[in-house]
Parts: sequence; structure tokens; C-alpha cells
Amino acid sequence: MVRTVGSTRESTWPRIRAAGIDLLYEIGYDGMNTRQLAEAAGLTSSALYYHFSSKEELLFRVLTDLLEEIVDDLDTSLEAAADDGPAVQLDVFVEVLVKWHVTRRKETFIASIETRSLSQERNEEYQRLRDRFDQHLHDILEHGAADGVFSPIDVTTTSASLMAMLTAISRWYDPEGPLGLEVISERYVALARRMVGSDER
Amino acid sequence: MVRTVGSTRESTWPRIRAAGIDLLYEIGYDGMNTRQLAEAAGLTSSALYYHFSSKEELLFRVLTDLLEEIVDDLDTSLEAAADDGPAVQLDVFVEVLVKWHVTRRKETFIASIETRSLSQERNEEYQRLRDRFDQHLHDILEHGAADGVFSPIDVTTTSASLMAMLTAISRWYDPEGPLGLEVISERYVALARRMVGSDER
Repeated sequence: MVRTVGSTRESTWPRIRAAGIDLLYEIGYDGMNTRQLAEAAGLTSSALYYHFSSKEELLFRVLTDLLEEIVDDLDTSLEAAADDGPAVQLDVFVEVLVKWHVTRRKETFIASIETRSLSQERNEEYQRLRDRFDQHLHDILEHGAADGVFSPIDVTTTSASLMAMLTAISRWYDPEGPLGLEVISERYVALARRMVGSDER
Repeated sequence: MVRTVGSTRESTWPRIRAAGIDLLYEIGYDGMNTRQLAEAAGLTSSALYYHFSSKEELLFRVLTDLLEEIVDDLDTSLEAAADDGPAVQLDVFVEVLVKWHVTRRKETFIASIETRSLSQERNEEYQRLRDRFDQHLHDILEHGAADGVFSPIDVTTTSASLMAMLTAISRWYDPEGPLGLEVISERYVALARRMVGSDER
């Protein structure tokens, strides 16, 4: 049997993934079912099961693929700013997070509410990766406070507040709205500088 | 037939409500079912249906009861600070929100992720009430900016960020942890003053 182009394992997964993201975003994990997923991806249910084993696996892959991309981007961007000190590094951290929440709004929104639908084991695996970016922010704030560049109210409250406001972007950002990535990014950078008591604010 | 104390409509609802909040918090709306609710409330399923009509009604009542209490508290607290100007009013707003997210952690957490499980009509009713407290914050920031008491980066970003960081408290707050309400409240007030560019920061 000759396979037609577009039916290989490699090209089908992105289609399932895209359909899965739309369903997770619009209906939610508990509300969606594999019949809807197959239909949205243009597959029969049995063809779908050739490519994935469960709804939970889909959610896990969507969430970890996204998180890995964000963490890689953060690692690279912060590595490039390694000699620039904590003030520049905070700007970079905020810019990277704003960018991901604006350009990958649906997936970041799903990540903000659906991690508890994962099995305990998978949730723990996800949280270990997630801790890596919380740790980046924590380190930047600690270094800035130690160097006297920042004067945070306290590192934990500031860090939790920054993460909350950045991850909330995917809740209100409207791709049809008037604000572009650049303006949003500038505003969050300016706000973050104030929050840490940066001497560059 | 003589009713025993504790089986009247009035005293049963709080028990159903408390059991419902625990289930919504631990398992989530889609995951829980009415059999579990009846069991947790110490009722038979038919006794349960005497007191409530659906899982969605439970969620709606839990969310709107909470929101009405918060909005009433905000209205009263801000009314008392009506002559004190926007700087004091911002402090009051933050203190009220911190208090509710610490003392009613489970319900505020449920509100942060389950509103989309409501029917469209009920969600809209909920959002209208919710808009009242977003409006309070928006008004305080606008007045403060107009009076020159605040110099926000911009009102919309600042307001969205404040709401995000305050509502996130129910995600990390640990009743067994070292931080009490007073310390948490002081830190968020100090951070909020910085964010609005208050001259009292």
C-alpha cells in the first residue's frame, strides 16, 4: 500500500496537535473527547489512535513541548545576557515571557488552568521543568538585591507577582486588539522595573 | 413526621455548600459528580436533589455568593475611605483582596479557573458582578493619575497586573506556611504602591 503525502506519522501529528490545542482552549480538557479530536483533525478514530494513546498524553505533550520551547528560549536569551547584570536580565526575562504569552496565547492559557488534569506523575514531571523558569527569575532578583541594583519588597512576593501578571497576559490579550507585542512588552518591562525597585526605573 | 435538628433546608445547604467547595477545589467541576457530593454532605442522592437542581447551580451559587460578599466588602470599605484620596483607597482595595484570597482560598481558587464551566448566561451574569470590582480599581487608578498622586505606566496594564497578582494568592498561599495575613497584606500594599508610581511608595 502506497501512503499518500500527508498521512505519514510526522505530518499527521502537527494536525492533531493543532486541533487538540483548539479544543483544549475552547472546550477544556474534561469537556473534549477523542471523537471531536479525530473529526477536527480530519481523521477516523482508529487513525487517531495510531498517533496517540490518550487524551492525557495529548495534554501532556502540548504542555511539555511548549514549556521546553520557553525554557530553551529563556536559557539562550539569559546566557546571551550573562555579562549584562541583573537589570538587563530582568528585562530579557520579561520580554521572553511576554512574547510567549502573546504569540502562543492558547497554549499558555491551557497551561495556566489544565495542569491539574495531568496524572500526578506527569504533573510532577511538568512542575520540575516549570521550576526551571521560576528559578531563573528568583536568581535574577536575588543577584539584583545582593548587588544593590534592585531593592525588592521581598523576593518571593515579587517573583510570584511577576509570574502571575505575565502568565495572565494570555487571559486578556486579544490578537485583534490595538496593542502589539512591542508596546505590551515595553509596558511590562517598565512595570517589572518598578516592582523590583530597580535603579533604572 | 418530626424533623430532626440539622435536616431542615436552612441547615442542610451550608453542609452541601462546604462539601461542594471541597470537591470543586480538589477534583474540579468536570471531575466531580453528584454521588460524591451527596456522600460528602452525608445525604442520599434524592435528599441532595431536594436542595439543589444541578452541579452547575452549585458552582454558580458558590461563585456568586463569594463574589457578592467581596463586592459588598469592597463597596463598604471604599465608601469609608471616600474622602481619603486614591492612595489610601488603593491600600484599602489591596488589603480587601488579599484578605479574601487568604481567608477564602479554596473558593477564590475555584473562581479563578471554573467560571468557564458555567452556562453562557450564568457566566455573563457572573462577569457583570465581577466587572464591579475591576471598575473600582480602574477608578482608583484613574483618579490617582488625574490628581498626580500616581504615575502609572498605563492604567490598563497596571490594573490587569494588580488583579492577576492578587488573585494568584490563592494558588500559592499555604495556611500551614509561615506567612500570616498581616505580613502578606503589607507586602502587597507596598508592591502595589510601587506599581502605580505612588508618591507614597
